[in-house]
Amino acid sequence: MTKLKVTVFPKAGVLDPQGKAIERALGNLGFAGVGEVRVGKVMVVEVNEADPARAKALGEEMARRLLANTVIESFTVEAA
Amino acid sequence: MTKLKVTVFPKAGVLDPQGKAIERALGNLGFAGVGEVRVGKVMVVEVNEADPARAKALGEEMARRLLANTVIESFTVEAA
Repeated sequence: MTKLKVTVFPKAGVLDPQGKAIERALGNLGFAGVGEVRVGKVMVVEVNEADPARAKALGEEMARRLLANTVIESFTVEAA
Repeated sequence: MTKLKVTVFPKAGVLDPQGKAIERALGNLGFAGVGEVRVGKVMVVEVNEADPARAKALGEEMARRLLANTVIESFTVEAA
């Protein structure tokens, strides 16, 4: 089995309300000098594919079809 | 400014219903040979701290106090 790490973030320019909320909360907790916060998802997926290139391609297809909303999100796939 | 990447995952043994749901959905989409799927959060936080070690310590404190529920989640902090 190969472990893939699929990381999904909102595309640049897409509003990130979670990030904004965390920025404010960190400030309220007394953390000074906090800049932008961006929040994404990360998924570790075990696939029954030993070849790294084919496993990565499989992960990219999973991301395109399910794990990411490619209209507003971008993703990366790497070996975990 | 330094960019930190804080990654948060459920601790081993903690139920991951999102992961289970994604496993099933990938199977339903025809992806054969999918093993375990674990889902976590990833946050990129800009901090006004140039020293890498101090920035990392700051990120760890942010994770302990806000970004992770350390009862059921574990986290890592690295330079983004």
